[in-house]
Amino acid sequence: MPSIKQLAEQLAAGQISLDRFLQEVARPRTADLGDVQLDLDRPRRCGYPEVVYGEGKSVATIERIFRRQLESGVGALATRINAEQANQLSALFPAGHYEPIGRTFRIGSADAAEPNETSVVTHPGRVAIITAGTTDLPVAHEASETAQWMGAATWIIADVGVAGPHRLLARLDEIRTADAIVVVAGMEGALPSMVGGHVAAPVIAVPTSVGYGASLGGLAALLGMLNSCASNVAVVNIDAGFKAGYLAAMIANRKQ
Amino acid sequence: MPSIKQLAEQLAAGQISLDRFLQEVARPRTADLGDVQLDLDRPRRCGYPEVVYGEGKSVATIERIFRRQLESGVGALATRINAEQANQLSALFPAGHYEPIGRTFRIGSADAAEPNETSVVTHPGRVAIITAGTTDLPVAHEASETAQWMGAATWIIADVGVAGPHRLLARLDEIRTADAIVVVAGMEGALPSMVGGHVAAPVIAVPTSVGYGASLGGLAALLGMLNSCASNVAVVNIDAGFKAGYLAAMIANRKQ
Amino acid sequence: MPSIKQLAEQLAAGQISLDRFLQEVARPRTADLGDVQLDLDRPRRCGYPEVVYGEGKSVATIERIFRRQLESGVGALATRINAEQANQLSALFPAGHYEPIGRTFRIGSADAAEPNETSVVTHPGRVAIITAGTTDLPVAHEASETAQWMGAATWIIADVGVAGPHRLLARLDEIRTADAIVVVAGMEGALPSMVGGHVAAPVIAVPTSVGYGASLGGLAALLGMLNSCASNVAVVNIDAGFKAGYLAAMIANRKQ
Amino acid sequence: MPSIKQLAEQLAAGQISLDRFLQEVARPRTADLGDVQLDLDRPRRCGYPEVVYGEGKSVATIERIFRRQLESGVGALATRINAEQANQLSALFPAGHYEPIGRTFRIGSADAAEPNETSVVTHPGRVAIITAGTTDLPVAHEASETAQWMGAATWIIADVGVAGPHRLLARLDEIRTADAIVVVAGMEGALPSMVGGHVAAPVIAVPTSVGYGASLGGLAALLGMLNSCASNVAVVNIDAGFKAGYLAAMIANRKQ
Amino acid sequence: MPSIKQLAEQLAAGQISLDRFLQEVARPRTADLGDVQLDLDRPRRCGYPEVVYGEGKSVATIERIFRRQLESGVGALATRINAEQANQLSALFPAGHYEPIGRTFRIGSADAAEPNETSVVTHPGRVAIITAGTTDLPVAHEASETAQWMGAATWIIADVGVAGPHRLLARLDEIRTADAIVVVAGMEGALPSMVGGHVAAPVIAVPTSVGYGASLGGLAALLGMLNSCASNVAVVNIDAGFKAGYLAAMIANRKQ
Amino acid sequence: MPSIKQLAEQLAAGQISLDRFLQEVARPRTADLGDVQLDLDRPRRCGYPEVVYGEGKSVATIERIFRRQLESGVGALATRINAEQANQLSALFPAGHYEPIGRTFRIGSADAAEPNETSVVTHPGRVAIITAGTTDLPVAHEASETAQWMGAATWIIADVGVAGPHRLLARLDEIRTADAIVVVAGMEGALPSMVGGHVAAPVIAVPTSVGYGASLGGLAALLGMLNSCASNVAVVNIDAGFKAGYLAAMIANRKQ
Amino acid sequence: MPSIKQLAEQLAAGQISLDRFLQEVARPRTADLGDVQLDLDRPRRCGYPEVVYGEGKSVATIERIFRRQLESGVGALATRINAEQANQLSALFPAGHYEPIGRTFRIGSADAAEPNETSVVTHPGRVAIITAGTTDLPVAHEASETAQWMGAATWIIADVGVAGPHRLLARLDEIRTADAIVVVAGMEGALPSMVGGHVAAPVIAVPTSVGYGASLGGLAALLGMLNSCASNVAVVNIDAGFKAGYLAAMIANRKQ
Amino acid sequence: MPSIKQLAEQLAAGQISLDRFLQEVARPRTADLGDVQLDLDRPRRCGYPEVVYGEGKSVATIERIFRRQLESGVGALATRINAEQANQLSALFPAGHYEPIGRTFRIGSADAAEPNETSVVTHPGRVAIITAGTTDLPVAHEASETAQWMGAATWIIADVGVAGPHRLLARLDEIRTADAIVVVAGMEGALPSMVGGHVAAPVIAVPTSVGYGASLGGLAALLGMLNSCASNVAVVNIDAGFKAGYLAAMIANRKQ
Repeated sequence: MPSIKQLAEQLAAGQISLDRFLQEVARPRTADLGDVQLDLDRPRRCGYPEVVYGEGKSVATIERIFRRQLESGVGALATRINAEQANQLSALFPAGHYEPIGRTFRIGSADAAEPNETSVVTHPGRVAIITAGTTDLPVAHEASETAQWMGAATWIIADVGVAGPHRLLARLDEIRTADAIVVVAGMEGALPSMVGGHVAAPVIAVPTSVGYGASLGGLAALLGMLNSCASNVAVVNIDAGFKAGYLAAMIANRKQ
Repeated sequence: MPSIKQLAEQLAAGQISLDRFLQEVARPRTADLGDVQLDLDRPRRCGYPEVVYGEGKSVATIERIFRRQLESGVGALATRINAEQANQLSALFPAGHYEPIGRTFRIGSADAAEPNETSVVTHPGRVAIITAGTTDLPVAHEASETAQWMGAATWIIADVGVAGPHRLLARLDEIRTADAIVVVAGMEGALPSMVGGHVAAPVIAVPTSVGYGASLGGLAALLGMLNSCASNVAVVNIDAGFKAGYLAAMIANRKQ
Repeated sequence: MPSIKQLAEQLAAGQISLDRFLQEVARPRTADLGDVQLDLDRPRRCGYPEVVYGEGKSVATIERIFRRQLESGVGALATRINAEQANQLSALFPAGHYEPIGRTFRIGSADAAEPNETSVVTHPGRVAIITAGTTDLPVAHEASETAQWMGAATWIIADVGVAGPHRLLARLDEIRTADAIVVVAGMEGALPSMVGGHVAAPVIAVPTSVGYGASLGGLAALLGMLNSCASNVAVVNIDAGFKAGYLAAMIANRKQ
Repeated sequence: MPSIKQLAEQLAAGQISLDRFLQEVARPRTADLGDVQLDLDRPRRCGYPEVVYGEGKSVATIERIFRRQLESGVGALATRINAEQANQLSALFPAGHYEPIGRTFRIGSADAAEPNETSVVTHPGRVAIITAGTTDLPVAHEASETAQWMGAATWIIADVGVAGPHRLLARLDEIRTADAIVVVAGMEGALPSMVGGHVAAPVIAVPTSVGYGASLGGLAALLGMLNSCASNVAVVNIDAGFKAGYLAAMIANRKQ
Repeated sequence: MPSIKQLAEQLAAGQISLDRFLQEVARPRTADLGDVQLDLDRPRRCGYPEVVYGEGKSVATIERIFRRQLESGVGALATRINAEQANQLSALFPAGHYEPIGRTFRIGSADAAEPNETSVVTHPGRVAIITAGTTDLPVAHEASETAQWMGAATWIIADVGVAGPHRLLARLDEIRTADAIVVVAGMEGALPSMVGGHVAAPVIAVPTSVGYGASLGGLAALLGMLNSCASNVAVVNIDAGFKAGYLAAMIANRKQ
Repeated sequence: MPSIKQLAEQLAAGQISLDRFLQEVARPRTADLGDVQLDLDRPRRCGYPEVVYGEGKSVATIERIFRRQLESGVGALATRINAEQANQLSALFPAGHYEPIGRTFRIGSADAAEPNETSVVTHPGRVAIITAGTTDLPVAHEASETAQWMGAATWIIADVGVAGPHRLLARLDEIRTADAIVVVAGMEGALPSMVGGHVAAPVIAVPTSVGYGASLGGLAALLGMLNSCASNVAVVNIDAGFKAGYLAAMIANRKQ
Repeated sequence: MPSIKQLAEQLAAGQISLDRFLQEVARPRTADLGDVQLDLDRPRRCGYPEVVYGEGKSVATIERIFRRQLESGVGALATRINAEQANQLSALFPAGHYEPIGRTFRIGSADAAEPNETSVVTHPGRVAIITAGTTDLPVAHEASETAQWMGAATWIIADVGVAGPHRLLARLDEIRTADAIVVVAGMEGALPSMVGGHVAAPVIAVPTSVGYGASLGGLAALLGMLNSCASNVAVVNIDAGFKAGYLAAMIANRKQ
Repeated sequence: MPSIKQLAEQLAAGQISLDRFLQEVARPRTADLGDVQLDLDRPRRCGYPEVVYGEGKSVATIERIFRRQLESGVGALATRINAEQANQLSALFPAGHYEPIGRTFRIGSADAAEPNETSVVTHPGRVAIITAGTTDLPVAHEASETAQWMGAATWIIADVGVAGPHRLLARLDEIRTADAIVVVAGMEGALPSMVGGHVAAPVIAVPTSVGYGASLGGLAALLGMLNSCASNVAVVNIDAGFKAGYLAAMIANRKQ
């Protein structure tokens, strides 16, 4: 779509009318789908399309959004999709892929509506996703699916929390090949600090609601990560695997 | 002092009067020092004398407590003693020892009023005190002085936080000789988990108020430590070096 | 398994190749069970094997971990096992023991895979487990089962909270025979302070989520215990019967 | 002052005008002192006059309030009066009494402006005020002064916290003579539960801001007291010695 | 039961043996019901028997407690009894009374096991129970049943919250006849302050978990009540109708 | 109903008796419906009738309130009405209107019991209701229905949150025609600040419980809105669509 | 300044160049004062100029802002100005007015730079500002000064909190003449609910940090106000007198 | 320094002794400066040297660290340096640079001890630092100095908060040239969401403690940023300008 500068040039050149100009400036690139105002301008501004948060949304609403996005030439991704929603979406979009642990549903990739699995990002980055325990895996898979949909290469290293520290040390060489790292941990949230102290890549820390009592639904891990003594650790919301994967892929894909 | 059983035997044997018996049972072993009810029975019940929390107490009050304790044959210890209090106490008790970083003042040892530095505990335990950063040192010294006063052998390993993990690994052999371990850390409080995962001794974790913002005055470290994934980590109050040293010495001294 | 020093000696002596050396140093003693990285080195480092947190784990996963642990010659313990998981595990491991109140499943003991109930710890410690009310019993049983699996002798003293203070006083002689004490309490969490003031052994306090309103799911009890005026009280997470039992057994077993 | 019923009778009898009636109904018994609307009707409604919270008030404002109260035939009491305010007030009201630990200034008693120390309450109640530690004394004195000003007989039992439980037991006979009991405690706030379990009188618990770290400025003690397992414990705000003394005196004075 | 003084006199007089003396001193008045240590000494110490908190207790446990209490000559009361528990208890104790809104089950009265409804308290007090809204009624009924069981006369004034302030004013004359007042309110918890400003009796405020969002499950009301500007307001735990009724009855019954 | 002034004039004129006068003054305008004290004076004092909070109320109770309100000549509104309650109410009040997304049931309008949809407010104000996302719609509809019942004209602009900022900009001209604006947002709650910075009308911000993790059930949005850097933003409780609609209509209707 | 529509018309008509057009669209109405980007467009968008938050700003910075605002034809207002800042500002702007209790400095009025005190708002609204206690006055004065500067007529009714409820009732007739009401209260924050239940105007509630202990620096009052059972109460930040005055004046000035 | 692999090769080749090998493996690259264990291995592992947190450290300690770092060939940076510390450090290190607003002291650059201002990073990234208000500037400068020391090109865009949204829009073209963006904001913390919605680069959000009342010392902004609806926003601790600058530079410098 044309930028405001291009529109103004067209207006000055008499190529478009004043009414058209004002309409374009004021209402660019939003698809009015009733209760949803779909932001079709997102790829131009932010590099990647809008992602659908599936919780509490009807399949009909998700379908409408997906169809409109595919029409505009980009792929589609929804998170927090439960099994029932997934069944219906799979029937509607046979080329879509449902990841049951991470509860994501994706079609094509961020820059291609065609449902082939490989992205056309020219310089895909490498994103390592590390978890402290096995119960952190759903969040890790959400991150992984998101980053893959954006064109990054991802892999998961699970259950290497600090209580058995040699488990992480044994994987360090592999971890150091990543362009960006996601660390997923609940309870005391100490793993990002330890990872951060061993690597030269940015670490996106995701606290999880794994734990009980004083874990306060993930707040303890969140606070721990925010206070990390490692300088290269930034934090996203509790259980926000999507956001961590998004940021890691954005960082990793920029590297070349 | 006689136990309730011994008193009842004396009463039954006519060795003491009923009035005396009731008086002994009801008011045993408390020294009434005006606003202070000094618990002189503590060594019999708990193994070690009462320790004075110095903050907000006048030197006159502390002096009264100390003199009464020394009379009863045990040493004395006060924590949170500032420089001004220390000057006055040193004049009053020349044999006393002031530790300015940990802000403790002690005379003799827990089981000996005589101001010689060596305790008569027959099997002194070994207590390692580990800190994440240099700003955690005041709390570490408070723990160390307390444990020494109780007869334990202590040493401090400072500034081995998780952001430079090899610093801890380099000291592990030494740490493993301890009978009990105190770990002092602020910010995210991750160090106790890492220490706990490497040793077979109990770890007493002390969160400190070191940090800013989301450290919430030490609450972040406290929550992190309570959620530690290491099984051998128990926690005491924020900045409670005294309690950590006390518990570690009690555990370590029991070992033989 | 060989230590790093032994491996280096073998390397220097030409007994093992460089590749083998590096492999051994980097990946020692972890059993890769897919999503689980089982820490088989734990007994050597920490004295006792890893314990499984059962909540949210499939029976298949738990089975894989148990079999691998038994193969390595140690017993197995899982906590937070519900009735359905227990039924399946009992079928798979007929020698296992399920404790339905504490919701633990254990096989053999920490140092013996053989499912005989008695441990071979040479100097088993004594652990008293005290509760304020009857609703605290599940946490108490979790602590008791854990400590027994580690070789300690345990017993439970229930419903002796501070509102009827003579109930505790009547049991003091018995409590004083313990090498370590676990105190389990919800609501205001005052019992550990009162126990602590009567004994010479370390007290591990466990706040429980028993209560309503301002109990804040156990936070009130947790804060109360952290602020205990008794010097010999350390605290673990809310409802963390496992950790309290683990620490108490570790302390008690060290005594001789 | 006349009640609304009396006023309506006078109106119906033609003894007062409609305007006067409406004025009386709408603006009874408030002394307009500029920024202060002094509630002179309080003794009729609530039994005792308004008490001045001194923090942040100028001596001039306090003087105006005091003079107006004394004119109306009742005594005066101000809390949170610092030494400087006290000096000026003592000069203005030589018959007044300043209590420097509790920081209260009082003249006469609640029902008598005359500055004799004895109240004319016909059946003064007995209020025992108990503290866990010596640092709780300022709050205890504020409670004591308030209750005495209201005509109750009070006495303070200091430093009998739960870590030395025999100290409280030794004073139980004395405590049981009270008509109402105030218990003042910081840190874990366990003392009210223990007192409550031994007596048949209502216990007003006052948490204090004594403590550090996880005491959270008194919140830990407040939560503990709210969750007290003793049935006869109600709670007032942190450091609210005034309110505890007021309630205890009101309860105790009602007994006959 | 004999006091410790009486026992000592008997011992000194040779009327009881030393063993018997020690047994009596150490284990007085506790009925060992397995997991329950029933405090039979409570009426002597605190004036009223122990009350059973029914939530999570089996009917069998409650039955055992009830039977033992009735045997000892006092009535019984259990709170938080759901419909299913009530059905079974009614079958076991036909003379018992179930109050379905307040969810209480009571037999006889605090000082009489006989299931007649009238208590033998010589000077029953009057307890008014006031609610802000209709949804506060369950807590009000729990308070009312408790106070009645203790011998007090009670009545409920419902739905007179501050948004329609004339509703309270219309009932003031009636409220002023009470010896103690319970005020039950959720949301902002403002009603106790307004009641307190109109009466000369102690007000026990009960915050309720009524509300949503920033009511934080009753914490907003709790904080509001603790900060009440009325001097005669003390607070109990959220939804603690039992404790409010208990305290109000204890206060009201003392008045003569 | 007559004011207190009119009543006093009637009393002075001998037109009503003293008893009648006192009765009228003390109990004006409250309908005693058992547990409900319906405030019929509300329209005179506050301009609009009382609104029923439906959660936890029986249909019978709501019916009684509705019938009494309709009798007094005003309409009726209930919020938080679930589908089952709605079915029964629709049968009882066929002229009533149920809005299933906002879960409101209304009859007539605030100033007219007749169930015609149009209000007789002479100068209806305009209220724009803006949401950040589609999941905020239930709260928006509750606000809209409330304001319409009060006679205001309302419209909803959905899904224009700050992540796609041009969506809001495109609707600004339309938004600027409103007399008062309601902004509904969860998560970070940033939309009210952005709306506030573009308009000259008051903004009532409603945080919603939409979000997860650190949204803390809407507290994050609530805090964000309270700290809004826009000067024209006031806040109501989390999910309080009713209150926002009420206030916006009250403000908007006053404008002429 | 020209709107974007006017600019586009000029561009289409060839009256301005494309560069000029883009510059105007992109950078309209911001005065670049170095670290400050002064929003000169605010009066057009929001009806009133930007107000300066004085805390932490140098007098030089404030002077620069003031001079630029006065040049543009509007008045100026700064809040949180301490005595030292005020002295310097008074010297720089002799026509300015400093209010020392509310700590505001204002010149002219929102729509007139001329320093005459009377505003030219054609239909000034009436704003009543009510406080619970005298210590709430600084916040009340900040609100009053802000509203006056915006052209509203204001008056303060102080010290009419709920503990002496007749004080408010006596002022109701006067309060009912207001077009918008600001209620300022600390501690339990109950006053807005009581005011709201008596009036037909919108109430802007301001919690203050007055209180201690469980007032939590104003959080208790804030929560209370958010949960107000009165429908016409909206809330602003703790101590935010400025924002309350701003909103009340905006609402009141709209009425005609 | 040699890697563990290189050391093992040397050992296998007989080039170093076993003792030397073990010493190197265990204590690599830590400079023991007494209480400080300086991590000299950090550049190899993490890409940049350790940075000194100056608060509470003596100038002597900082000097020791700086000298050791400069010897090892890298530059030095300390944050939270007050004016007094800065004066002494400037005397000791004349080539150092003190930034008084951000309170940082730096010598050379991260990869060059030589105190020339230009870094030798081959592909320096571009980091834009944006603030909501002028009081956020200290945090912005800390971020800027840190990133420059690491070799990035930085610039600050101040005072473009959401209340005047055109101020940000006017700078968007410039902002879009950045490789990574730091957004600094207090109060409601809405700016990162708005920036994030306009750009394709990662946004590191820094909440600041700017604000009062419900800002809770920056917690409100922190929670707002964690809940950001923009996908490309990660968060660091309150006031953690250093960490934001560090991460942004690390990301930006990786791009080529």
